[in-house]
Amino acid sequence: MSTGLRLALDPRSVAVIGASENPDKIGGRPVDYLARFGFRGRVFPINPNRALIQGLKSFPDLAALPEPPDVAVIAVPGAAAVAAVEACAQAGVKIAIMMASGFGETEGGKAQERDMAARARARGLRIVGPNAQGLANFATGAVASFSSMYIEAPPEDGPVAIVSQSGAMSVVPYGLLRGQGIGIRHSHATGNDCDVTASELAVAVAQDPGIRLLLLYLESIPDPHHLAEAARVAHARGLPVIALKPGRTEAGQAAARSHTGALANEDRVVGAFMERHGIRRVRDTAEMVDAVALYLKGWVPQGRRLVVISNSGATCVMAADAASDAGMPLATLSADTQAGLRAVLPSFAATANPVDITAALLTNSRLFSEILPVIARDPAADAFLIGVPVAGAAYDVPVFARDAAAFAGLTGKPLAIAAPQPAVAGHFKAAGLPVFTFETQAVAALDGFIRHHALIARARRRAASAATPGPAAGEETLLNEADSLACLAAAGIPVVPHRLCRTPDEAVAAWEDLGRRVVVKGCSADLAHKSEHGLVRLNLLDASAVRGAFADCRRILGSGGLRFDGVLGAAMARGRRELLVGAHRDPGFGPVVVLGDGGKYVEAIPDTALLLPLFDADDVCAALGRLRIAPLLRGVRGEPPMDTAALAAAVVAVGQLVLDDPAISSLDINPMLLSGAGEGCTALDAVVIRTV
Amino acid sequence: MSTGLRLALDPRSVAVIGASENPDKIGGRPVDYLARFGFRGRVFPINPNRALIQGLKSFPDLAALPEPPDVAVIAVPGAAAVAAVEACAQAGVKIAIMMASGFGETEGGKAQERDMAARARARGLRIVGPNAQGLANFATGAVASFSSMYIEAPPEDGPVAIVSQSGAMSVVPYGLLRGQGIGIRHSHATGNDCDVTASELAVAVAQDPGIRLLLLYLESIPDPHHLAEAARVAHARGLPVIALKPGRTEAGQAAARSHTGALANEDRVVGAFMERHGIRRVRDTAEMVDAVALYLKGWVPQGRRLVVISNSGATCVMAADAASDAGMPLATLSADTQAGLRAVLPSFAATANPVDITAALLTNSRLFSEILPVIARDPAADAFLIGVPVAGAAYDVPVFARDAAAFAGLTGKPLAIAAPQPAVAGHFKAAGLPVFTFETQAVAALDGFIRHHALIARARRRAASAATPGPAAGEETLLNEADSLACLAAAGIPVVPHRLCRTPDEAVAAWEDLGRRVVVKGCSADLAHKSEHGLVRLNLLDASAVRGAFADCRRILGSGGLRFDGVLGAAMARGRRELLVGAHRDPGFGPVVVLGDGGKYVEAIPDTALLLPLFDADDVCAALGRLRIAPLLRGVRGEPPMDTAALAAAVVAVGQLVLDDPAISSLDINPMLLSGAGEGCTALDAVVIRTV
Repeated sequence: MSTGLRLALDPRSVAVIGASENPDKIGGRPVDYLARFGFRGRVFPINPNRALIQGLKSFPDLAALPEPPDVAVIAVPGAAAVAAVEACAQAGVKIAIMMASGFGETEGGKAQERDMAARARARGLRIVGPNAQGLANFATGAVASFSSMYIEAPPEDGPVAIVSQSGAMSVVPYGLLRGQGIGIRHSHATGNDCDVTASELAVAVAQDPGIRLLLLYLESIPDPHHLAEAARVAHARGLPVIALKPGRTEAGQAAARSHTGALANEDRVVGAFMERHGIRRVRDTAEMVDAVALYLKGWVPQGRRLVVISNSGATCVMAADAASDAGMPLATLSADTQAGLRAVLPSFAATANPVDITAALLTNSRLFSEILPVIARDPAADAFLIGVPVAGAAYDVPVFARDAAAFAGLTGKPLAIAAPQPAVAGHFKAAGLPVFTFETQAVAALDGFIRHHALIARARRRAASAATPGPAAGEETLLNEADSLACLAAAGIPVVPHRLCRTPDEAVAAWEDLGRRVVVKGCSADLAHKSEHGLVRLNLLDASAVRGAFADCRRILGSGGLRFDGVLGAAMARGRRELLVGAHRDPGFGPVVVLGDGGKYVEAIPDTALLLPLFDADDVCAALGRLRIAPLLRGVRGEPPMDTAALAAAVVAVGQLVLDDPAISSLDINPMLLSGAGEGCTALDAVVIRTV
Repeated sequence: MSTGLRLALDPRSVAVIGASENPDKIGGRPVDYLARFGFRGRVFPINPNRALIQGLKSFPDLAALPEPPDVAVIAVPGAAAVAAVEACAQAGVKIAIMMASGFGETEGGKAQERDMAARARARGLRIVGPNAQGLANFATGAVASFSSMYIEAPPEDGPVAIVSQSGAMSVVPYGLLRGQGIGIRHSHATGNDCDVTASELAVAVAQDPGIRLLLLYLESIPDPHHLAEAARVAHARGLPVIALKPGRTEAGQAAARSHTGALANEDRVVGAFMERHGIRRVRDTAEMVDAVALYLKGWVPQGRRLVVISNSGATCVMAADAASDAGMPLATLSADTQAGLRAVLPSFAATANPVDITAALLTNSRLFSEILPVIARDPAADAFLIGVPVAGAAYDVPVFARDAAAFAGLTGKPLAIAAPQPAVAGHFKAAGLPVFTFETQAVAALDGFIRHHALIARARRRAASAATPGPAAGEETLLNEADSLACLAAAGIPVVPHRLCRTPDEAVAAWEDLGRRVVVKGCSADLAHKSEHGLVRLNLLDASAVRGAFADCRRILGSGGLRFDGVLGAAMARGRRELLVGAHRDPGFGPVVVLGDGGKYVEAIPDTALLLPLFDADDVCAALGRLRIAPLLRGVRGEPPMDTAALAAAVVAVGQLVLDDPAISSLDINPMLLSGAGEGCTALDAVVIRTV
């Protein structure tokens, strides 16, 4: 990280350009906050019209300051803001936080913003914003923000950091978490990210040793390398990163464009990128905020088998449904455990998992406390849900809560409480446990938390990718089928036996040599799709048919004015299923590998998964497992499994190829014919596009 | 509805068998509640050991009462409870509410329960329970329940009714809704439903004219006819019904079995049944409770086009994503509307939908109020979401809330507020608007509400099914292919041209007559699946091949000891896609029609939809639209659409057939060959099983 950004979090001095006496104004709020939250550096209000601002000496302009400030908050709008950036660069300010709106989020404003950022950067000034609500670090009191939230929900330094492009989304999670009593150290809103991006700032925040959970809200990711770096820095010290990236849909992307001027990212690539780097992607604020209490317990989950305990059968049923939905198996409790439970619980209680204490708890308040130690000893459990949908006057809830906390301490395994009654929830929260309103919510939180740990573990095992180059500059050239197959074969990807034939005689010879069961295809670097032009010929029974096919292909290409590179004779191959494997370069995220079911309708009813190189065979197998056709690959109706090992090796080779050869702008193997286990897979046709 | 169940809701007198002086005991709580909540009838505590119970004269037994009570609460356990049922029947009690556990939810208890119910019913006594938490009607004060919730969250009579098998799920929604200030009239927990079921009780509750929303929690539905009747009664007076039916998964069903002794229902059939009857099925308590405030506004949605308004761009982006996910289009605001908005909002605000007021609201608090009337006039809007993620000291939130309420009154269209700050939410709630924490939650609630209205409208248009007979008694007999096709053809379902041939000569004649492109299949009432036995012969080029096929089929069936009914010669048919259409009888829900994509892997990677007869062609088309292959049916890659009209007609005929002929226990058309629009569909093979 540049020292520059560390200064943004911990400046020695802050100037506020456009400082206001009124703390409810954009220019007044930071002055008020810096004082209110104990900023220990110097604060310089800048306002030519007043001698004092909120009790501090006011300066007419930056030039009048006794020293160049590390940070300048620019709280003036429009052209004045642009002039202020210029003045900051002039004065040797390190970081300008630009609050004005009306730049990159409007038509035409993008170019102005870019120029401004480039000019500033050339002179050593970094810009946060424009359209930024500002930065807030409650450890240092450096709160250069105009959000009103820090009055509504007073801050308390703590283990959570929020970095957001949006102002609202820097403080909505803040407010909700503060409402839960959770302390927040960082709450930063970077706006349009014309220079410093949220991801770059996240790298700096991830280095703060006091942070134990990093929450990101990103409407666009123009700089994936910064986000990857933030994840790397975070994971190196065991810091989980959760990101909300909206604009998943076309309507959402359009809205993001007019909000922060966000450039659209292809959403599935974003998802694959986050997975690649161990970042948990959440769908909404609820999912982001719900997770936090579980994370802060510091549990390291070892598996996914859940045990559900409740005084309500309904909770047991709904939690079992939710666990099944999430793919969390219910742990099978040992005979010993069940015998131990039977010794305590009434005969009509359920001692298998879910454990239903029943309303008998009403007549014997100790049941709950007595069963927990029995369950704690069972090694089959990886995580626990205790549901207390109703507990009233007759129940000793503080004791339940105390015993549940002791149980969690004893097992060291994740535990979530579901308690819809505020009073009951309060007791469990006071005992330091993560509490949810609904059992489905608790199961979802456990599931997300456990999945995230697995994701982080995989990301840490993976070698860091070097650069992730986007499309190379230059003109795109299509390789003909022969050259495309040669390119793949050179990379170790199995291709169909074939021969490029320049003459009819060569074609006949190939037909003989390849065993007479041959497909003959017109080969041209001017054409990617052959079959719809009649350039694919099957069932060639004799040499004259082969010659005819050769002549037809030459004629068809010639009459279309297309280059004739010969015909490709390829052996007819047998296999079990046609898949597709492709790769392209995302402008932001670099190489992307796609694999999925093949056939005629891959676009109409797609069944594909994305992988970002580098990945290994395990990653490919995990991706295959997410396809709808996964059961077919494993073998159904008595069929043996297919050769996913060979397929995985081929897909890994495709990933390595596009990473190694930046001139390949795209690659399309369709079909990749997959055979039974041990029988391999074969690229039957391919199109490679290179940039030259 | 029987008068009997109306008495359960509004009894003239209630006896409590096992009455306790301690109101925290199961036998003490109802005595306390009946007094506390103003029950105007007579209360008879029964306890031989005390003269007074909670200040009321106590009786030694039922026989000692001055009159037979309408309702008796049985608050004693085990054998004493069974004896009390007997005593109730003896004494002329109308309804016994049996709280004891340990009956049908345990092994062996089911039969005891069934016998007890039958004996009671024969003598005019209805049983609610056992394992019932009890009934609560806050309009009459008839609160015969031992739930502690009514102390925790004091009741207030209101427009919501809850009928639940589970005790917890009768009061968890109660507590959450009371926490929102919403009044609840009914909160009933029926337990194991050995006699009176939750659905039967729901019929009675649906007749209460004070109820405007009916919430159901059902772990099993042994009596779909009661649930259908409840929906019919409800819809006749505009009362929406929302049901939570857990046990969706195997793990959930196992838990339900030990909770209320629930019999498993096939979950997809449950879903189809609810849809058929206009009942909205929710997945969890959150979805159930979230919906309520919207329903109680009485809005009748006319469409699905959403307008999003916020002071935060992030809310706009996330709401747009959520709307897209839900299939709610963002309304296109007219040029007039957008011009009107531009006249009010700053230049960098977004005036297309979503409407982003931006943080400019901070400097001009009137922006919000000024844009609402402009938007209210736009006819393109069907529903609104106003998101206020942050509004602090500088904002006049009470005015926003008042203006939003006026706006809702002006448009008469559904409006949801998303406001995560409790203080902000409070102002909008106080103005009578439905408020949610998150924008995704608000969109989901609007979507569910609007879909439900469409569902109810469709259900009301539909003719009520008569009975929905389950499997007939008797032995199942397989019809051979010829008889199966004949059965379909007689019902108006198009079948392939075919001929049953008893001799080789007949087979050759059929081959000639059907145009020589013929498939020959061995026909046997002993065998449903032919191809794996070598009984399907294609590519028969001459008469001797046909004779050979005939001989082979006879030999294969004979050697297997299977009846030989001849061979079926059927014309080879061409079409575009092989589908499957089937029907079976669910033990509880009666005839079920399944349609979906065909092929070899229908079980491994199924793509099917369910319909419960009677349904019409529109219902079939809606079901087809939910299939994964729906785009292929509509036509992709330049292909014309397929003949879904013909398919729909055939599927409607299948539904009518299984409804008309209760002896058909199942029917399987696989494949149903579908051709292009105007070219029809054809059953190529069929198996019908009849009960004789």
